[in-house]
Amino acid sequence: MFELGVVHRNIRRADAAATDRLAAFGAATVHEAMGRVGLMKPLMRPIYSGAQIAGTAVTVLLQPGDNWMLHVAAEQIQPGDVVVAAVTAECSDGYFGDLLATSFQARGARALIIDAGVRDVRVLTEMRFPVWSKAVSAKGTIKATLGSVNVPVVCAGMLVTPGDAIVADDDGIVVVPAARVAAIAEAAAKREALETEKRLKLASGILGLDMYAMREPLAAAGLRYID
Amino acid sequence: MFELGVVHRNIRRADAAATDRLAAFGAATVHEAMGRVGLMKPLMRPIYSGAQIAGTAVTVLLQPGDNWMLHVAAEQIQPGDVVVAAVTAECSDGYFGDLLATSFQARGARALIIDAGVRDVRVLTEMRFPVWSKAVSAKGTIKATLGSVNVPVVCAGMLVTPGDAIVADDDGIVVVPAARVAAIAEAAAKREALETEKRLKLASGILGLDMYAMREPLAAAGLRYID
Amino acid sequence: MFELGVVHRNIRRADAAATDRLAAFGAATVHEAMGRVGLMKPLMRPIYSGAQIAGTAVTVLLQPGDNWMLHVAAEQIQPGDVVVAAVTAECSDGYFGDLLATSFQARGARALIIDAGVRDVRVLTEMRFPVWSKAVSAKGTIKATLGSVNVPVVCAGMLVTPGDAIVADDDGIVVVPAARVAAIAEAAAKREALETEKRLKLASGILGLDMYAMREPLAAAGLRYID
Amino acid sequence: MFELGVVHRNIRRADAAATDRLAAFGAATVHEAMGRVGLMKPLMRPIYSGAQIAGTAVTVLLQPGDNWMLHVAAEQIQPGDVVVAAVTAECSDGYFGDLLATSFQARGARALIIDAGVRDVRVLTEMRFPVWSKAVSAKGTIKATLGSVNVPVVCAGMLVTPGDAIVADDDGIVVVPAARVAAIAEAAAKREALETEKRLKLASGILGLDMYAMREPLAAAGLRYID
Amino acid sequence: MFELGVVHRNIRRADAAATDRLAAFGAATVHEAMGRVGLMKPLMRPIYSGAQIAGTAVTVLLQPGDNWMLHVAAEQIQPGDVVVAAVTAECSDGYFGDLLATSFQARGARALIIDAGVRDVRVLTEMRFPVWSKAVSAKGTIKATLGSVNVPVVCAGMLVTPGDAIVADDDGIVVVPAARVAAIAEAAAKREALETEKRLKLASGILGLDMYAMREPLAAAGLRYID
Amino acid sequence: MFELGVVHRNIRRADAAATDRLAAFGAATVHEAMGRVGLMKPLMRPIYSGAQIAGTAVTVLLQPGDNWMLHVAAEQIQPGDVVVAAVTAECSDGYFGDLLATSFQARGARALIIDAGVRDVRVLTEMRFPVWSKAVSAKGTIKATLGSVNVPVVCAGMLVTPGDAIVADDDGIVVVPAARVAAIAEAAAKREALETEKRLKLASGILGLDMYAMREPLAAAGLRYID
Repeated sequence: MFELGVVHRNIRRADAAATDRLAAFGAATVHEAMGRVGLMKPLMRPIYSGAQIAGTAVTVLLQPGDNWMLHVAAEQIQPGDVVVAAVTAECSDGYFGDLLATSFQARGARALIIDAGVRDVRVLTEMRFPVWSKAVSAKGTIKATLGSVNVPVVCAGMLVTPGDAIVADDDGIVVVPAARVAAIAEAAAKREALETEKRLKLASGILGLDMYAMREPLAAAGLRYID
Repeated sequence: MFELGVVHRNIRRADAAATDRLAAFGAATVHEAMGRVGLMKPLMRPIYSGAQIAGTAVTVLLQPGDNWMLHVAAEQIQPGDVVVAAVTAECSDGYFGDLLATSFQARGARALIIDAGVRDVRVLTEMRFPVWSKAVSAKGTIKATLGSVNVPVVCAGMLVTPGDAIVADDDGIVVVPAARVAAIAEAAAKREALETEKRLKLASGILGLDMYAMREPLAAAGLRYID
Repeated sequence: MFELGVVHRNIRRADAAATDRLAAFGAATVHEAMGRVGLMKPLMRPIYSGAQIAGTAVTVLLQPGDNWMLHVAAEQIQPGDVVVAAVTAECSDGYFGDLLATSFQARGARALIIDAGVRDVRVLTEMRFPVWSKAVSAKGTIKATLGSVNVPVVCAGMLVTPGDAIVADDDGIVVVPAARVAAIAEAAAKREALETEKRLKLASGILGLDMYAMREPLAAAGLRYID
Repeated sequence: MFELGVVHRNIRRADAAATDRLAAFGAATVHEAMGRVGLMKPLMRPIYSGAQIAGTAVTVLLQPGDNWMLHVAAEQIQPGDVVVAAVTAECSDGYFGDLLATSFQARGARALIIDAGVRDVRVLTEMRFPVWSKAVSAKGTIKATLGSVNVPVVCAGMLVTPGDAIVADDDGIVVVPAARVAAIAEAAAKREALETEKRLKLASGILGLDMYAMREPLAAAGLRYID
Repeated sequence: MFELGVVHRNIRRADAAATDRLAAFGAATVHEAMGRVGLMKPLMRPIYSGAQIAGTAVTVLLQPGDNWMLHVAAEQIQPGDVVVAAVTAECSDGYFGDLLATSFQARGARALIIDAGVRDVRVLTEMRFPVWSKAVSAKGTIKATLGSVNVPVVCAGMLVTPGDAIVADDDGIVVVPAARVAAIAEAAAKREALETEKRLKLASGILGLDMYAMREPLAAAGLRYID
Repeated sequence: MFELGVVHRNIRRADAAATDRLAAFGAATVHEAMGRVGLMKPLMRPIYSGAQIAGTAVTVLLQPGDNWMLHVAAEQIQPGDVVVAAVTAECSDGYFGDLLATSFQARGARALIIDAGVRDVRVLTEMRFPVWSKAVSAKGTIKATLGSVNVPVVCAGMLVTPGDAIVADDDGIVVVPAARVAAIAEAAAKREALETEKRLKLASGILGLDMYAMREPLAAAGLRYID
């Protein structure tokens, strides 16, 4: 958050295979597997419904109303990356449109997560380049002031270190530290397996009250039924 | 709003047939028929477009970050019910996901109205289980503290008594007291009949100014036309 | 903003052909061509995705909770107009629904831009009558107090003079003064031509850093690369 | 919430002596004594700091932009009452100013709680007539549409029944059901007594960790100290 | 709103004596005298309580994060002016601090109204230089991009033409067109005279119901009293 | 942000003397000296006006609705510290009141910065224990779930590492990395010296336009004066 004007070219990316596994679980399951930490604020919303991705973070620290560093970041993108952009102050300008999306896609980026605004959302949707942002705005930006690329940033209330795994879908965005990706993927897989079984039981009409054996603890907590 | 730790098993549900009639009119027409009271705050939004439902309210009072009572509520659901959930404090957590939706659907619930967040929205959309909420969040909840089921609650600014009829669509959510459902359905039907006729006139180019005979009252109020 | 109770019948509309040209460029490109002024606040959102329109402004100044003037405005609509409605105070009521939309469409209106709420959004979507608003609400309005038609209004933070060209799409809404429409269409066309060329280069993997010759100014500004 | 156009003249007010006792405890202590229910949303703020009151609720249901019912309510005020005003829709208009405050004060009202705006706040402050509101606005209101007096209302998210005790200070506003006022005053007094003792211990440097015997449960929950 | 890079040196200021008269009435009374138009949005708040001013508007159009034009505006200030500053996009930066306030005060400015943030608020309060803003922020601004001085601007939702009279106090900010200042001062004086009389009556216990002869219209509207 | 259930007892605090120097400069000057980074979001507001402090950060990561860790943090406080508290999710509950303030003050804490709510604000004000928070709420919290003490946290959008210097006043809150405190104090002192001189010139009527030699760059940027 404190370093302006630098680009770190070598970052330790989370393991690619483990990161890829995370995509299938989605943000809610991964967030549970993390022990309920790592979630960005829910004001971040996808520009279209249905995208569900995971990738390794290339981070960008932007100045308000200035998207110069997104061009610098493009060169640092490797296939499988997700660009995570923070701004040094509140800004809802449209930092990113179809031209940058074309460039990011050509470099192999899977998505953009930006704590600001985007534009050309109809075209981005047609291109199927997923973006999570806090605003949509036709207002463009200039290219005049330095920020940084691949420094730790705070995006939508969450610290992101370059190389962290990012998991995003319609439910939100979770940040998984690079060192923990394999373990979290394992934990998420276990949760998922259990859920399939539960879903079948619930669909057959079995109540959560019975499936989770909640009646006794509820009574112990003092729940009273009144007829 | 003041009673924690109780579940009322016997509630007086609004007449089923009259409640069912309300669905076709939608929230805006029913709200007019009510005399313009009974509407929840417009920050409540559907997770997908196009759902239009009516049902009888099973109410839930939840604690922040805790969805225990939704499981207790599941047992109280009868076919045709809509679960209406309030929280004792502001909370945007994802209280409800595809597992609970599976259970609610198996019990015959038609929808969930929740003054908090939900998750698994892509799956809920595929399941066609409609939810109106004020947030979407991957953040799950715990099961530790008692709330209540089938007590009067305030949801999105509106008082809901168990058994009230709930009408919800893309325009919002209206609460109809159980005792008035038949009368309101009647009034809504009358409005609807009038509207069809008006629609045809307006489509043919007749102005509202003439159709509603507004020119005289406008002039009386002092409206001046300037060429 | 200061004149209540008047309807100006003769307004100088922006050139129709030039206004029509603006639609194809969309809000972001037109906003750039304007020199980055003229954009309404980004809290204005379309009721459905994908609409992209341009038209000449018929303005309406409404009172809170009262849509009387929308009926007065309907008579002033000419084919190719866009109705732009402001309110004298904050209000999220549903001022506009399918009946008024039927009337506006019959008069040749292309869209409604309203700094308040709308309703019947499912039907409006089926009718393909595009609306940009700051809220959706089932709450209807009364017809009791005079406002004005075709006076200058402030809508979502932007001054709109009757006859101005309005350009709106999923990115937002831009207001182009009537006298500048032809020049802005020209400037937008030039931008668009350049962008097509750039898009091809970026898609081939050329970086913005090189295409825009940014490496030298970035170095001059002090950007440091760290391996 | 559903009844317009009525004034209930006879309401069962909470016991006056018990209500008066509540004032000294303040909102936070009374809220704890209630079991953490009954608090209005924290967006309600006092117009000046330092007021701390309790009184019995005379409720008012207002229409947006219309303060007619506040005049009707004035007649129902008895010494020791607090007027609690809700609106049938979101509105930040200034419903209440120094004239109404003069009238309310002459009738013996202790405060106004209003889920809307107020004005003349400098004069109200000089008069020492405390108001909690969600907005301050110079915008006045009209007197044209009926609401109700002394019906149950939802104010800032909380149900208020006429005659309930209201406790308000800089921390917020708590609603105590009339039937429970004496018991809650008793519980609050006990909490208060305990707190004085604790305050002295903490001021002497004793840690909450020891005073509340938290070290063991923290260790049991897994807290690790790292040097 | 559309003109960047210009400074109008000659503006037609509202009559000084009439403008000065407005200060004593305050924003609420002047707003009523205006027929309830001209009020800025209530999110604009004074940095300290109790200031009540009127003056003639020198307008400034600023770029986001850039306060260059405030220095250009300083030269255009004449004794009795109020600087009204708008920004071309949402921004909460601290555009104005004690240095600029020193300069503005030396030039004879009476206040600043800014649709953005300010800083050094403790010192500004000690200097008794009143500011109404939508934010307080320590974040400073740069001096790099042109805006304009003395062009029409939209500030907090209201159109301000250079030379308009501005009235501001704890209740908000009202804009009075230069040509109407004398008439509005007259109308406000009449309102004020009536209010003093009413205040005495209400203080003596007479009800608004009787003083305003409301009982009959209330009954006509259908108000029912229930014992 | 990712570590729950740990307390780091040994942190490297910023140099005490250099940190103490920062207090006199205030948040705005220190933020400038930092190169305009390090500022928390402006929604953080002091509970009373006029406090201006600096100290070394003891950080706390809290769970929603649970203030257990504030008691754990109290033991880690050393004279001259400022407690900086973040929450793992949005929460406006009143985590901190006069009892904890008594304990913190007894331990030598200078202030609390909390990205949530506080209560007992009247008493805290009388105690002159300064708190910056995003909300005031009478709603208390429980003591049930582990968070952490002295781990890096994101508070109001800014990363805080334990031991960082915190500078807070009415303008906001700035975080200075421990290693840079002496250098920043030096830079701030230089700015301050220059400002005193400038203030005298501006007070004498010299314009910023001349003092900062802006006329030429403004003309070069194309500013036009119109008479």
